[in-house]
Amino acid sequence: MERTSCGILRDSNKGEKVLLKGWVQKRRDLGGLIFIDFRDRSGIVQVVFNPEVSKEALTIAESVRSEFVLEIEGEVVERAEGTVNEQLDTGNIEVVATDVQILNKAKTPPFMIEDETDVAEDARLKYRYIDLRRKEMQETFLIRHKTTQVIRDFLNQDGYLEMETPILTKSTPEGARDYLVPSRVHDEGFYALPQSPQLFKQLLMMSGFEKYYQIARCFRDEDLRADRQPEFTQVDVEASFVTKEDIMNMTEGMMKAVMKEVKGIDVNVPFPRLSYEEAMERYGSDKPDTRFGLELVNISSLVKNSGFQVFEKAVASGGQVSAINVEQQADQFSRKDIDQLTEDVKVYGAKGLAWMKMKDGELTGPIAKFFGKEEASSIREALNAKEGDLLLFVADKTSVVHDSLGALRQKLGSRLGLIDHSIFNFLWVIDWPLFEYNEDDGRYYAAHHPFTLPAAEDEQHILDRPESVQAEAYDIVLNGYELGGGSLRIHERDLQEKMFEALGFSKEEANEQFGFLMEALDSGAPPHGGIAFGLDRLVMILANRTNLRDTILFPKTASASDLLTNAPSKVDEKQLDELNLELNKKK
Amino acid sequence: MERTSCGILRDSNKGEKVLLKGWVQKRRDLGGLIFIDFRDRSGIVQVVFNPEVSKEALTIAESVRSEFVLEIEGEVVERAEGTVNEQLDTGNIEVVATDVQILNKAKTPPFMIEDETDVAEDARLKYRYIDLRRKEMQETFLIRHKTTQVIRDFLNQDGYLEMETPILTKSTPEGARDYLVPSRVHDEGFYALPQSPQLFKQLLMMSGFEKYYQIARCFRDEDLRADRQPEFTQVDVEASFVTKEDIMNMTEGMMKAVMKEVKGIDVNVPFPRLSYEEAMERYGSDKPDTRFGLELVNISSLVKNSGFQVFEKAVASGGQVSAINVEQQADQFSRKDIDQLTEDVKVYGAKGLAWMKMKDGELTGPIAKFFGKEEASSIREALNAKEGDLLLFVADKTSVVHDSLGALRQKLGSRLGLIDHSIFNFLWVIDWPLFEYNEDDGRYYAAHHPFTLPAAEDEQHILDRPESVQAEAYDIVLNGYELGGGSLRIHERDLQEKMFEALGFSKEEANEQFGFLMEALDSGAPPHGGIAFGLDRLVMILANRTNLRDTILFPKTASASDLLTNAPSKVDEKQLDELNLELNKKK
Repeated sequence: MERTSCGILRDSNKGEKVLLKGWVQKRRDLGGLIFIDFRDRSGIVQVVFNPEVSKEALTIAESVRSEFVLEIEGEVVERAEGTVNEQLDTGNIEVVATDVQILNKAKTPPFMIEDETDVAEDARLKYRYIDLRRKEMQETFLIRHKTTQVIRDFLNQDGYLEMETPILTKSTPEGARDYLVPSRVHDEGFYALPQSPQLFKQLLMMSGFEKYYQIARCFRDEDLRADRQPEFTQVDVEASFVTKEDIMNMTEGMMKAVMKEVKGIDVNVPFPRLSYEEAMERYGSDKPDTRFGLELVNISSLVKNSGFQVFEKAVASGGQVSAINVEQQADQFSRKDIDQLTEDVKVYGAKGLAWMKMKDGELTGPIAKFFGKEEASSIREALNAKEGDLLLFVADKTSVVHDSLGALRQKLGSRLGLIDHSIFNFLWVIDWPLFEYNEDDGRYYAAHHPFTLPAAEDEQHILDRPESVQAEAYDIVLNGYELGGGSLRIHERDLQEKMFEALGFSKEEANEQFGFLMEALDSGAPPHGGIAFGLDRLVMILANRTNLRDTILFPKTASASDLLTNAPSKVDEKQLDELNLELNKKK
Repeated sequence: MERTSCGILRDSNKGEKVLLKGWVQKRRDLGGLIFIDFRDRSGIVQVVFNPEVSKEALTIAESVRSEFVLEIEGEVVERAEGTVNEQLDTGNIEVVATDVQILNKAKTPPFMIEDETDVAEDARLKYRYIDLRRKEMQETFLIRHKTTQVIRDFLNQDGYLEMETPILTKSTPEGARDYLVPSRVHDEGFYALPQSPQLFKQLLMMSGFEKYYQIARCFRDEDLRADRQPEFTQVDVEASFVTKEDIMNMTEGMMKAVMKEVKGIDVNVPFPRLSYEEAMERYGSDKPDTRFGLELVNISSLVKNSGFQVFEKAVASGGQVSAINVEQQADQFSRKDIDQLTEDVKVYGAKGLAWMKMKDGELTGPIAKFFGKEEASSIREALNAKEGDLLLFVADKTSVVHDSLGALRQKLGSRLGLIDHSIFNFLWVIDWPLFEYNEDDGRYYAAHHPFTLPAAEDEQHILDRPESVQAEAYDIVLNGYELGGGSLRIHERDLQEKMFEALGFSKEEANEQFGFLMEALDSGAPPHGGIAFGLDRLVMILANRTNLRDTILFPKTASASDLLTNAPSKVDEKQLDELNLELNKKK
């Protein structure tokens, strides 16, 4: 007899004999009968043990507890009136057991297998095989499976070849910290686990494969935040002879397919595009959540000559003044509330948060007096301020204004319930700077990575005006999360050398680290570009989760431990000897 | 204008204007014209530069060399009579260039980009991006891509979920040597790279996912042979509530689909099954190549009382005598030839190779005199010996007889041209022993791994007669290569504990290493089993390659080096300090 899945049984199966295999979700004894909620991957069905049908089966059923693994034969019957369970897809029917076998016993689980659990995450991770039985976890990994298949199908149809690049590769100091793997064969030799397949995928373009993709594991030995893992999965794509438009169109097609197949949602393409500067000016973020308003408005030009010193000075010293109009919230925010918001923006380096309220057609509040009639009117107009609105201002260095108001905007959006969680707002951020200046190190770093192509018109200024050079780069953003990013790449050796020079590499260092790339660029390298995005994060958003660890089967904790297998752990002295390693206890 | 692929142009495209992008394969100057064999991923087309069409284009063409990257506009025209190139799919037409642009220059490549190359492999690996441009390499990775997609489609349709297990995991001493990854956060802590996802896939069964697969990277720090790599790719499958038949049927369906889609070949299912014992007895191998005969025949019972001491003794001391009939080769093998074969079998521990030839209806040769008429006749019959046949005998310990005659059979099969390279012979080897005794260590090891289910009827003898216990295991073999193997797994804690005991683990050791598995087995573990097979090797066979490195984009050498990026390599002192490691120079 063929096995039947529990979750698919319906009215139409009435009278059928079925063979079920799965787990006891719950057992209830009632009036001489035993009811078992019986679960497999497909769902739950109620099984009834009735002494009039089989005394033997009932006797066995009396000995089973939650999570026992059973094989049950029975017949599908309609439920008696009044016992239909609307909560269950199978709730119109039940299975009357004629035979049952215990395939395996189970100890009492450390926690209940149910959604909306408040079990501590450490326990969930230690007993991951229990945690993963919960419905929401099962659904998340079904979404993950579907998402990867849709992505693959899309790319396969578009002529992309799935290709595997090495995990044991070379350490490159630029970028995040590498995980290292000591070599047993090569004295003092170490492999590194790849932070991304970036160089290999570029080499594949130089190998003439033209269209590459990989769902690739990547590794970064960084101090972990809630949304970071030591190993993560990246959808990695690269193509030759392409424009930015080609890669962006391809990505939009892929995301549209994912949204349709996985969520049943039609998203419009092309996605909106914001320049990096516009994103920062309007949203105070390079990954803006556009599901709600509360946009930043730069009023520097309106207030640069106001009598209000704080505003004047900020503008005069090269900074700016921007504001958010929190509509209709003037009465909802007390001074104390605003004091709290002020504390919030101080975290981002802002010296304060100025505010005004629209009352009786006028701007009111402690700073209102500094603005003349015309100024006040132009501020109102710029912010489209109406009766009852609350206006919040930050005057500071531009980066502080953006960071603090961007964070404040996101906070207020959540707190005021302005975010529609049913929508998915994709957008592109383009026109990125090529370099980032690091004040601590006193040098420029690549804003994306050192292989990004500068805009053709800026190329000449890589060395003399690096801060002004734009990159042929594009980031894709979904609901305020950076999903991924890409760029066209440098395909000419001369330019790549200039880029390394701008990043402070000596010729020797560049050759030592990237000599193979330079040679490959000299071998007939086609123009190429690509994109990479985080699969874990995409799945997190698609599955309506907020914890990245819920999208990874066996994740690590914030201290990079696997609580289930207890990794990392000590190894035998013999293993260290073979690797010619000594642990330095002085640490 | 949209780009057109070079390799698809045919007669039917005559008169079309096309935009090509790709590489100069070869340039020839002839009678004032320039001919370029122009290559992209799809193939090669001839492009003609004619001063009467465009002087500018011709001038540019004069400056290009092999592997320059060009963009060419032109028109597809019929080739003049007598200039059709039958070697090229596009050989009926050529493209007359109207415009050309150099997208990138190229230095003279270190070797020619052509098949049947005799370039040293080290050079091919160092300049892998050149090597990969060769047609046979491009085709191999197209086969690899197709193969993985067919496998995924097959498993997706069968309800399997693709799932990702960790790469940073726990070191387990049983098995091959682990690659280790030092932890920066945990004092003296190391991760290990997985030798396979075995335990995680079993945990996924205990997590209720029922059907899992992964195309998984695996790692073994072993001394490399030609067909081993430090990292390799495994198609890894596991399912719950299954029988051996279920897994074998699924695998047969998958292989049938791969052969059909990738090679256009219909293979018959079910595949033949041989018990381990039968495979060893008939082919002297646990991965027999059944594309040719030369089967071993055990004649122990026929010769155990012959006057020939060598045969008698071998049988009497528990060994055996087996023979191969090399049909119609009596005259082709001189004494000297046979002496050489004798040297070959000695490598496998055989003390000698006895032989007889069928001449004039009689067995002849130095040992023929030892056999009476009846014995000789029974030997002839057993070996189906006919006039002109050469019979080769080994008498020794059973394992030596199998190993030496198995190797001899394979060698003769190749040498005599008996192997039909157009056929694909899949088969199963079943009924494996659960344990292997290691004489050096004086203990039993798991023949597959410690999680393999013993046959139900043998379970009771795990501790008292381990050598007699059979495993619920199956290996799949293709043309003499072990493609992969699988088994049903132990799903009950008691049995798993007994298994560890049989392998010499103390209770503490078993718990230290596998405590999490024991607990999971106690949590409601379903019966489960699976299979894993080497993707690299499968692709090697499908692509008619003999070197596993040709199926991996960026493989390592025999000393586990990547000659392209120069990994492994030294790392900064700072990196070692962060890991609290010291290199022990005493080695």
